[in-house]
Amino acid sequence: MSSVSGSSSTTEPSQRWRIDLEYDGRDFAGWQLQPGTATIQGAIEDALTHLLGQSVRVAGAGRTDAGVHAAKQVASFVTTVERPPERMRGGLNRFLPSSIACLSAQPVPLTFDPRRDPHVKTYRYTWLVRPSRSPLREGRVWHERRPLEVSTMHTAVQAIVGTHDFTSFRAVGCSAKHPIRTVPEACVEAVGDEVRLEVRGTGFLRHMVRILAGTLHEVGRGKRTLDEFVAVLEGKDRTQAGPTAPASGLLLADITYDE
Amino acid sequence: MSSVSGSSSTTEPSQRWRIDLEYDGRDFAGWQLQPGTATIQGAIEDALTHLLGQSVRVAGAGRTDAGVHAAKQVASFVTTVERPPERMRGGLNRFLPSSIACLSAQPVPLTFDPRRDPHVKTYRYTWLVRPSRSPLREGRVWHERRPLEVSTMHTAVQAIVGTHDFTSFRAVGCSAKHPIRTVPEACVEAVGDEVRLEVRGTGFLRHMVRILAGTLHEVGRGKRTLDEFVAVLEGKDRTQAGPTAPASGLLLADITYDE
Repeated sequence: MSSVSGSSSTTEPSQRWRIDLEYDGRDFAGWQLQPGTATIQGAIEDALTHLLGQSVRVAGAGRTDAGVHAAKQVASFVTTVERPPERMRGGLNRFLPSSIACLSAQPVPLTFDPRRDPHVKTYRYTWLVRPSRSPLREGRVWHERRPLEVSTMHTAVQAIVGTHDFTSFRAVGCSAKHPIRTVPEACVEAVGDEVRLEVRGTGFLRHMVRILAGTLHEVGRGKRTLDEFVAVLEGKDRTQAGPTAPASGLLLADITYDE
Repeated sequence: MSSVSGSSSTTEPSQRWRIDLEYDGRDFAGWQLQPGTATIQGAIEDALTHLLGQSVRVAGAGRTDAGVHAAKQVASFVTTVERPPERMRGGLNRFLPSSIACLSAQPVPLTFDPRRDPHVKTYRYTWLVRPSRSPLREGRVWHERRPLEVSTMHTAVQAIVGTHDFTSFRAVGCSAKHPIRTVPEACVEAVGDEVRLEVRGTGFLRHMVRILAGTLHEVGRGKRTLDEFVAVLEGKDRTQAGPTAPASGLLLADITYDE
């Protein structure tokens, strides 16, 4: 393929690119590069290296855990190789495994930083609520055989809307400098045989949505009251919250940047 | 597991069961039993044999092709082993591979015949219409990078509604006794970045929906006019129709029996 042998000269100007990505997280040990392990960042860097003929470092808007999916993740890289956007996207898709796709590629200012530039992420957590598992949604949902009290879960999750200290919903190993985050919107709704939690936010702590899902699940099963859920948030203590929900149910659904 | 060693005696009365099934067809060479090959019928018979401790023959409402999925397929079998319906369903799911699930199991009259008893099947064929493939819908759609004229496809497919000779939309190897079939309803609609063909019918010829999808695809791409599509149906000649669309896009969405 001619696209493999991209010319590379240090005298050519550097161009930063934004790439929007979709992936099925099942095949990967998460986003972040780990030597000797299949990661999404690693697979994209490998594909870009083959496509552009020069080694490329990719930065993502956020690190998804092992098994977590993305309908839209945003990443960025710099290269001296020139390509029309359509060919950058198409070429990348030829070299990526079938579990990762590049939805769009566009040249952006060198200052673009997918993680630090102001943006809103939408995460969706999905429960399948029925007696039988679903082969067509295998690895995409948390299977709960018993009913969930959806309206109670929805009322409970309103407590996290606004700016709060999310220490209770933060993994022990989280490296964030502080636990204060802002959640402009959160909801739980039933859609067919699924229950979906959607949380929008400008930033998330490690495992925040999964610990939230694990705790709301207990509310939905009647094991915690509304007041107890609010007390968990106010307690600022991880041990008061529920378990970290399985990664399979989590989807990074969208990222939008301020224009 | 205690459920493996189901008691089996020829003096016990035979009970017929109806089982409703969901499956991802990618792992299988279709529904129908083939020695030495993974088939859906074979996997279900194996699971029932392990569960009930006696060999069981399963009959399906229809045979789906290799790679075709089902959100609801109906099958039936006879056994002398007694089980409460919930335990029959749950036990079967423990022995089935993750790509097949039993949605429900219920005792039915011995005369129940999932293929011959009056019923209506709904098939759905799905195109993904966008430049990039979708990892989250891999193996479930036909990927078309260029736009489809959805309203023209919808108008065209109305020509098959009613009772017609479907010889043009019948695979060469089809073993049906005659090519007359009744289609009470058919539609094509855009849903997000997908285009979906839905066809309801009391019976289908081999590859009928896939040849229909392949021909409608040509209408959607502007390669055939509405009049030409109608002429294909009236021509009663398989060679006049379009290609057989890929199995991956096809889903047996529903089966309902007359009460």
